[in-house]
Amino acid sequence: MITVLAIGIGSGSPAHLTAEAAAALNRVDVFLVADKRAETSDLAAIRTDLCRAVITGHNYRVIEVADPARDRDPSGYREAVADWHARRARAYADVITRELPDGGTLGFLVWGDPALYDSTLRIVEQIRASGVDLALEVYPGISSVQLLAARHQMVLNTVGGPIYVTTGRRLVDEFRPDLGTVVVMLDGDLACGRLVEEHPDLEIWWGAQLGLADEALIHGRLRDVLPGLTERRSAIRAERGWVMDVYALRTAD
Amino acid sequence: MITVLAIGIGSGSPAHLTAEAAAALNRVDVFLVADKRAETSDLAAIRTDLCRAVITGHNYRVIEVADPARDRDPSGYREAVADWHARRARAYADVITRELPDGGTLGFLVWGDPALYDSTLRIVEQIRASGVDLALEVYPGISSVQLLAARHQMVLNTVGGPIYVTTGRRLVDEFRPDLGTVVVMLDGDLACGRLVEEHPDLEIWWGAQLGLADEALIHGRLRDVLPGLTERRSAIRAERGWVMDVYALRTAD
Ligand SMILES: C[S@@+](CC[C@H](N)C(=O)[O-])C[C@H]1O[C@@H](n2cnc3c(N)ncnc32)[C@H](O)[C@@H]1O
Ligand SMILES: C[S@@+](CC[C@H](N)C(=O)[O-])C[C@H]1O[C@@H](n2cnc3c(N)ncnc32)[C@H](O)[C@@H]1O
Repeated sequence: MITVLAIGIGSGSPAHLTAEAAAALNRVDVFLVADKRAETSDLAAIRTDLCRAVITGHNYRVIEVADPARDRDPSGYREAVADWHARRARAYADVITRELPDGGTLGFLVWGDPALYDSTLRIVEQIRASGVDLALEVYPGISSVQLLAARHQMVLNTVGGPIYVTTGRRLVDEFRPDLGTVVVMLDGDLACGRLVEEHPDLEIWWGAQLGLADEALIHGRLRDVLPGLTERRSAIRAERGWVMDVYALRTAD
Repeated sequence: MITVLAIGIGSGSPAHLTAEAAAALNRVDVFLVADKRAETSDLAAIRTDLCRAVITGHNYRVIEVADPARDRDPSGYREAVADWHARRARAYADVITRELPDGGTLGFLVWGDPALYDSTLRIVEQIRASGVDLALEVYPGISSVQLLAARHQMVLNTVGGPIYVTTGRRLVDEFRPDLGTVVVMLDGDLACGRLVEEHPDLEIWWGAQLGLADEALIHGRLRDVLPGLTERRSAIRAERGWVMDVYALRTAD
C-alpha cells in the first residue's frame, strides 16, 4: 500500500511548520519533487535545509520527476492541457512503482498551504485516475497570505467584511471596492498599477520573499508607494534572479 | 516595557501549532482571556490543555478581563460601539498595568489565525490608543478554513479561479457564482439554505468542530445534503451546547 502525504510547509522555515507537518515529514520514505528546472536553486536549497533540520533518524530519498514536454500550440489548448496532465500523471506513476515496489510513504512538500493555488492535490488525483491506488493525507500549512497579514500585523477583513483572493491575471477585470479586502497572488508584474487611476484611494499591504532572508514589506496608499515598490521588486529580482510577492488591497475608509 | 504576543493556535490542538507559536507560548508571563461568559467551558478547557501540553518550565498566569456592559440600544449604534470599545480598552489597560507593573510579556491566544475575523489585533490597537505603550508580535495560525480544506482534501480555488470569504449574515446578499469558491464563516443558521432554489447546482464542503473530538464533515450537492447537514448540526449543538462550523460553496462545473 502506498500513502501520499501532501505537507504544507509554509515559507519553508522550520519556524512556520506545524507539529503534525513535522511528524509527517518524519514518516516519508520518498519525496517527489517536480522538475527542478521549474524552480530556482534557492527554493530547492530551502527545502533541503528544512528536511535536514526537521527529519531525525529516518532515511528518505528525494526523487525528481521530470515534467513531460508541453505542447504550447494554442489551437486545441484544452486538449493539449488534458493530454499533458495525463502524461505527467504517468510520469509520476512510473516513478512511484519503480521507487516503492513494496509500498511505503510518499511525500510532497507544498509551499504555503496545499489548498491555495497549488497543483499537488490535482496531481495526486490524476495519478489515482491513471490506475495507481494511493491513500492520501493532507497537512495544512501557513500560507503566504497569512504571513503577509502577520508581518503587517493586520486583520485581513474589515469588521464583518469580506475577503477576495485572486490572481494578477484576473485582478483588473474583477476588481470592485465592494469585494472588501482583495488579496492578489501569482502576479508577475504588479497588475495593481492599472487600478491606481480609477481608484486613487486604494491602500496596499505588500510583501515579497516572506519568511526568507530578503523579506520585504511595504504599506501605504498605492498611488504614493507604487514607484518605490516597483523599484524594490525589481531590485530583489535583479539580485536573486526571482521574486515572489503577494499583496492586499482595500479602499481607505 | 510590555510586549504583546498575538498567537494563532489553530484548532487548539498541539498538532496544529507552528514551532514559532509554541516558542511564543513559552515566553508569556500573563495570558489575557476575554470574559469567559462569552465562550463555552469546552473552549476554555482546550486552551488550558494546550498551555499545559506546550509550555515547559516557564511560569505563567491566566487573567480574565471582564467585558464592560454593552449598550444594545440600536439608536446611536455607532457611538455605542465606539464607547464600548473605549471602555473595553481601558479595562485591558487597567489589568495590564496592575498585572505587569514592571513590564513583561502578555499573550493572547487566538483561535485559528489572528488575521481572520478576530478582534485581538483591534483590541491591541485600542489599548495603545488609550495610552499604553505596547510592542506587538503576531504569529499566524492554521485557520478553520484551511482545516476545512485539508479535511476534504480539496484545493479551495478552481485552476486560477478566485476565492471569496464572507459571513453568514452577508452571504445571501453577496452570492454570485462568479465569485469562485465562496467560503462562509460566522454563520449562525446555515444561510446557504436560502441559495438552493436559485442555485440548484451548488456544491458544499462543510465542517464543524474541526480539529476537535466531535469533528463532522459533509460534502455533496447542497440541495441533496442540506437536510442531513441541518440535522447533524442540530445534533452537535444539542449534545455540546454549541457548534462552530465553516463551509465552502461552488457551482459544479
Ligand atoms: C503557486 S502559488 C502557491 C501559494 C501557496 N500554496 C501558499 O499557500 O502561499 C505562488 C504564489 O504564492 C505567493 N507566495 C508564495 N510564497 C511566497 C513568499 N515567500 N513571499 C511572498 N509571496 C509568496 C506569490 O503570490 C506566488 O506567486
Ligand atoms: C470569530 S471567527 C474566528 C476565525 C478564526 N480566527 C480562524 O482563523 O478560523 C469564528 C468562526 O470561525 C469558524 N471556526 C472557528 N473554529 C472552528 C472549528 N473548530 N470548526 C469549524 N469552524 C470553526 C466558524 O465559522 C466560526 O463562526
